[in-house]
Amino acid sequence: MKALLLVAHGSRRKQSNDEVILLAEKLKNECSRQYNIVNAAFLELSETLIPDGIKQCVTDGASSIVVLPYFLNSGRHVVEDIPNIINDCIVQYPNVEIRLAPHLGASSLMIDLLISSAETENTV
Amino acid sequence: MKALLLVAHGSRRKQSNDEVILLAEKLKNECSRQYNIVNAAFLELSETLIPDGIKQCVTDGASSIVVLPYFLNSGRHVVEDIPNIINDCIVQYPNVEIRLAPHLGASSLMIDLLISSAETENTV
Repeated sequence: MKALLLVAHGSRRKQSNDEVILLAEKLKNECSRQYNIVNAAFLELSETLIPDGIKQCVTDGASSIVVLPYFLNSGRHVVEDIPNIINDCIVQYPNVEIRLAPHLGASSLMIDLLISSAETENTV
Repeated sequence: MKALLLVAHGSRRKQSNDEVILLAEKLKNECSRQYNIVNAAFLELSETLIPDGIKQCVTDGASSIVVLPYFLNSGRHVVEDIPNIINDCIVQYPNVEIRLAPHLGASSLMIDLLISSAETENTV
């Protein structure tokens, strides 16, 4: 079984965290062919924290887990904190393939997304 | 002349701000047909601040400016702080059409971008 764990920073604002959880649910609906399990986790400030998110995927039967950082910049969280946490998890679950995907801001599709957003009316 | 102003939060880390400026440069190359001017600006912590970014677009001859928030969550910065700054600019430059685009996290392309990132090898 394959799992995808969307990892965001986490906020003191419940609404921000709920947005990430909702996004993970949308993602689950859109990629159910590729991933049996899709969940959200947070680096800090909100449950579920990353190690618990990984643990839940393993408990649910995942044999491979892709961790996807929902971050725009390659700051300390992306280049140090999240890799360190994931490396600890890799040691803890040697029979599970755990892979860290590039953070969102590194995507080659970002330019297309920005151009599309610029052309969209703001409905907020 | 049309301008696009990419607005990020701003960071104490110069490297994070430089990433945004570099992204604006890439964006400029990709959408030079739609926008004559493409620049980056920051809400706080780094130059150029948003009002100065708007002023520069006007000085450079922009008759319309799209402000594009490079933010993932619809937090206070997206729903209050940036709209307030833009509303002040609209009053200040009545002859320039200034429009606030939806923040990045609201994009309908976000799911596609996430799925693509999950399938990409991490080269960081």
